Amino acid sequence: MGRVLRVNLSEGRVRIEDLPSEDVLRKWVGGRGLGVYYMLKEVNPRVDPLSPENKAIVATGPLTGVTGIPSSGRWCSVTKSPLTNTIHDSHSGGKFGPELKFAGFDMVIVEGASEKPVYLWIYDGKAELRDAKHLWGKDTHSTTDMIREELAPVVGSDEAREIKVACIGPAGENLVRIACIINDKNRAAGRGGHGAVWGSKKLKAIAVRGHMKPRVANEERLEEVALKSMDIIKKSPVTSQTLPKYGTAALVNVINAHGIFPTRNFRTGVFPEASMISGERIADEIMDWKMAEEEVCWGCEIKCARYTRLVKPPFTGEGGGPEYETVWALGADTGTSDLYAVTKANYLCNELGLDTISMGATIATLMELVSLGKVPKEKLRGLKVEWGNGEALVELTWRTAYRSGIGDDLAEGAARLAKKYGAPEIAMVVRNQELPAYDPRGAQGHGLAYATSNRGGCHLRAYMIAPEVIGIPQLLNRFETKGKAAWVKEFQDVFAALDSLVVCKFVSFAYWADVLAEQLSAVTGWNVTADEFRKIGERIYNAERVFNILAFGDGEEYDTLPKRLLEEPMPEGPAKGHVVKLSEMLPEYYSVRGWVRGRPTRAKLEELDLKWLADRLEKEGLLPA
Amino acid sequence: MGRVLRVNLSEGRVRIEDLPSEDVLRKWVGGRGLGVYYMLKEVNPRVDPLSPENKAIVATGPLTGVTGIPSSGRWCSVTKSPLTNTIHDSHSGGKFGPELKFAGFDMVIVEGASEKPVYLWIYDGKAELRDAKHLWGKDTHSTTDMIREELAPVVGSDEAREIKVACIGPAGENLVRIACIINDKNRAAGRGGHGAVWGSKKLKAIAVRGHMKPRVANEERLEEVALKSMDIIKKSPVTSQTLPKYGTAALVNVINAHGIFPTRNFRTGVFPEASMISGERIADEIMDWKMAEEEVCWGCEIKCARYTRLVKPPFTGEGGGPEYETVWALGADTGTSDLYAVTKANYLCNELGLDTISMGATIATLMELVSLGKVPKEKLRGLKVEWGNGEALVELTWRTAYRSGIGDDLAEGAARLAKKYGAPEIAMVVRNQELPAYDPRGAQGHGLAYATSNRGGCHLRAYMIAPEVIGIPQLLNRFETKGKAAWVKEFQDVFAALDSLVVCKFVSFAYWADVLAEQLSAVTGWNVTADEFRKIGERIYNAERVFNILAFGDGEEYDTLPKRLLEEPMPEGPAKGHVVKLSEMLPEYYSVRGWVRGRPTRAKLEELDLKWLADRLEKEGLLPA
Repeated sequence: MGRVLRVNLSEGRVRIEDLPSEDVLRKWVGGRGLGVYYMLKEVNPRVDPLSPENKAIVATGPLTGVTGIPSSGRWCSVTKSPLTNTIHDSHSGGKFGPELKFAGFDMVIVEGASEKPVYLWIYDGKAELRDAKHLWGKDTHSTTDMIREELAPVVGSDEAREIKVACIGPAGENLVRIACIINDKNRAAGRGGHGAVWGSKKLKAIAVRGHMKPRVANEERLEEVALKSMDIIKKSPVTSQTLPKYGTAALVNVINAHGIFPTRNFRTGVFPEASMISGERIADEIMDWKMAEEEVCWGCEIKCARYTRLVKPPFTGEGGGPEYETVWALGADTGTSDLYAVTKANYLCNELGLDTISMGATIATLMELVSLGKVPKEKLRGLKVEWGNGEALVELTWRTAYRSGIGDDLAEGAARLAKKYGAPEIAMVVRNQELPAYDPRGAQGHGLAYATSNRGGCHLRAYMIAPEVIGIPQLLNRFETKGKAAWVKEFQDVFAALDSLVVCKFVSFAYWADVLAEQLSAVTGWNVTADEFRKIGERIYNAERVFNILAFGDGEEYDTLPKRLLEEPMPEGPAKGHVVKLSEMLPEYYSVRGWVRGRPTRAKLEELDLKWLADRLEKEGLLPA
Repeated sequence: MGRVLRVNLSEGRVRIEDLPSEDVLRKWVGGRGLGVYYMLKEVNPRVDPLSPENKAIVATGPLTGVTGIPSSGRWCSVTKSPLTNTIHDSHSGGKFGPELKFAGFDMVIVEGASEKPVYLWIYDGKAELRDAKHLWGKDTHSTTDMIREELAPVVGSDEAREIKVACIGPAGENLVRIACIINDKNRAAGRGGHGAVWGSKKLKAIAVRGHMKPRVANEERLEEVALKSMDIIKKSPVTSQTLPKYGTAALVNVINAHGIFPTRNFRTGVFPEASMISGERIADEIMDWKMAEEEVCWGCEIKCARYTRLVKPPFTGEGGGPEYETVWALGADTGTSDLYAVTKANYLCNELGLDTISMGATIATLMELVSLGKVPKEKLRGLKVEWGNGEALVELTWRTAYRSGIGDDLAEGAARLAKKYGAPEIAMVVRNQELPAYDPRGAQGHGLAYATSNRGGCHLRAYMIAPEVIGIPQLLNRFETKGKAAWVKEFQDVFAALDSLVVCKFVSFAYWADVLAEQLSAVTGWNVTADEFRKIGERIYNAERVFNILAFGDGEEYDTLPKRLLEEPMPEGPAKGHVVKLSEMLPEYYSVRGWVRGRPTRAKLEELDLKWLADRLEKEGLLPA
């Protein structure tokens, strides 16, 4: 049986408890799924996300840190988001996740709030809260180094560098709604402002080190599926060639060529200077391949990690990244083709603890607000907040983390920013979360995925770009709406289960539910079929929706997109003339989901063993008739 | 009789009391002098400057805000400095000083420390402490705006913009030892880390507004001396032409032409690109004359204020400055000729609350440390900390204010930085305070002034550049050492008295002790002669030295200069081959001062009516035999 570390910050106590019964585990698995389960059981969905009543869950899954399972070096944070007010999970790579498991814990549940800054130290099955007064205010890199240094006497100075640290930067401390949690210095549980939740609890960091081995029920079966999995990954050109060579930013030129590379806050889908911020240019010009090798996630053979070095002023530095989403958000979305400025802002996001997607998109929103004359001049203190000004990226990143000047408004995210300055419609968000790097006017299914994402604007609930653009597992007509609903549901469900394993979504370019179910079976000893695996995902997706319904009345009115995507045809390029025909897809989506006006029916919930959630909805008058 | 506002932050109480008796006032006058008097009476000189036992004094002088007295729009902060451990006064212009007087107070004495952030609101003779939780973390511009906004209902919204605010930025909050106090958004009580003292007391700001009129004993006599003073100012080319036209940075080309413009941390005195950061270029290229008019200090006719605007990326913005010392420290001293980067860093110093001289000089120190291979590479995170890199200025300013990464070391100032990285000798400091913009190897008297400055490296205790370079009141041979001691003493004494009036030192380019004594007499009704005026200054200078002796055993061993200035001949230019021949001047200086080994004798102290200080020194065994 696995173990849960429960940390009550209000009382300053840690307690070890067992994972739920196997029956519950088989329904929720781990990671995202189990996180949602705990949140529904223990947290009032209407709670203020930044209050002590919210909880911050740090979870691994059954596959985390299991040798032989490809790309299982991840972990997941689950909480109610201060950006979206939804249930929210955010995932990250690096080495922290496996280390948490090696230290003896599957999950950490942080509740309450401390009066004074603390950090949690977990070491070979034991845990303690430690004073973090001296760490408060420190950036994520300094925090990591300082923790390693002060714990060196405990673990031995040779081993100190093996301590893995997840922490928040100044942005999280300052309750910036787009603050992330950074682990291993350059890895981010980025989206949804989880860093602000830690900040509200005065939880600066979690440091882990351990020597235990994850449980595996059937070693033989594991070996078999491991070999098979790795074989598929090595045969997939995406996972064996494109990602290792060019990283995620390999997508820049591909997506731009399809005319759906959102440019200047989604005003167009074509960025003429895309090649300046492409994965190819990164690889050719600024990669430090030796350092990148060290950045690779635990046990990963795909190795998409980037580590770069800028040696040409005015923007210099070194660090992890940039990823595809980052060069898009800080680059094309702000009209900036200066790879150096973009990468520099990326470094700062990592150090200060900011989500690069939301940061870039929020800056882009400000740039559009300024271009529309909506922002009083004195607010900007002469900073040239104009499309393409790399300095603005760098300065506004600083300002956001510290809520300095206009940064105080940027810290609230694009939706609240645009609303404050009188143009809410230009915030390119779903459920207040900034949309990522694909303009759905040229990928209809992806548009449906955005609109129905239950953690807000997101490409990781359902990555319809795979079938609609890349052709995995097959190429669909991206401008077609019919039939996309079922695809979106399949992605949402399988990804929800995958996120509960916990493994990297990049394996989904190589294999799908059947292989994942086999992996899960080998490690747990269960016999999970691909269909049961899908069902697990569907259960999770529905449970999350229920959380949101209870939280703020989620439903059809939130399953929408910014006006720009629904009403303004793409002005140029290969997707010219298209809008997202959401109204053609939503009814079909609700139908395949068994939902009514964006809400699950009792029948659907009971089919998923979620009668208790149907009862809760009914009690609050939120169950559809 | 004037009034003192005593604010006890530990108790959260304010109390109004009278100024000391006229007898005491005539000895100490106001501002700096009276500040030192209170500090000696009330504060143990050995106290930790950042402890509640230190006090922070905000003072005007008898001439502050008196209509007709030229350049009387200043105020002065007195405290024990966390940078130098000496008694320290720091002065600032703008409009805050007169407003404090119009609000009914000559002086504010802040003692103790608050548990929670507060600000002090002074309005027409009344005062209260107000919660500043929402202001904590805010930059100085936001703080000013927010205070004005929240007090608008009190003073009326038309008058809210007339509220004058002195405050600290994040640097002060973070106890940065080179943090300043900023008033009127762009004016700094810059040197000595007074901002950190406020930060340690959790005093975010002092806001003032008033409608009272300063006392004037003899209106007729005032009118007479006012006309006379103004006449002299209008006849002086420095105060009537150079300063209004080119600001203080008019000095750049002059000082560089003399080969004493310290370049790359004083490695040479010639900066070939000086004209790029000159007052002329500022005036031609980035001045906003209309805004500069608003920035002029209360009642000043010299109008040296700069307000500039940068519209060319990568460095854009607008704000007050840059001054001569700033373009030097952030420019030549770091080898940077990029006026835009320098000015941008200046804006950030103002907003974040950092002393531009110390900031630039500390960055220059880091650059030299890096060039010497003293700083581990990973400390810099790839930032190109190299002579001339403008980005480094900007980024390191942010990092210093927030103690992020290497900024945590920069925040300690040049002396502690250089010591930490194993090269204390390269810190260009006196008593741990960074030297300003004149290389004394080509101005011997100025070197003596640095060495004997009792607030640490400073050009404002004795500005020997006036006689040694500018020729005011007469041109001295700058390479000569003989006779300079008396000049330095004269400057130190007159400036100490002038700092107690409180007026701007720029009037000293036009008139001297006689006129100042007349001004003081007109306002107070005393009959102060030029000699009495000098004596007041001498008393203050000696009292300050006594404070320092009691604080850390100040004396001859501290009256020195960095090795570079004493032993390394200037390598090039008009001052080539020279070092500072301090040992030739110091004995003469001690002799004219009546000091022995850097400490006043009983005879000298008694001559200055400071028997009580002689007694204190004797009691502690610190009185020279």
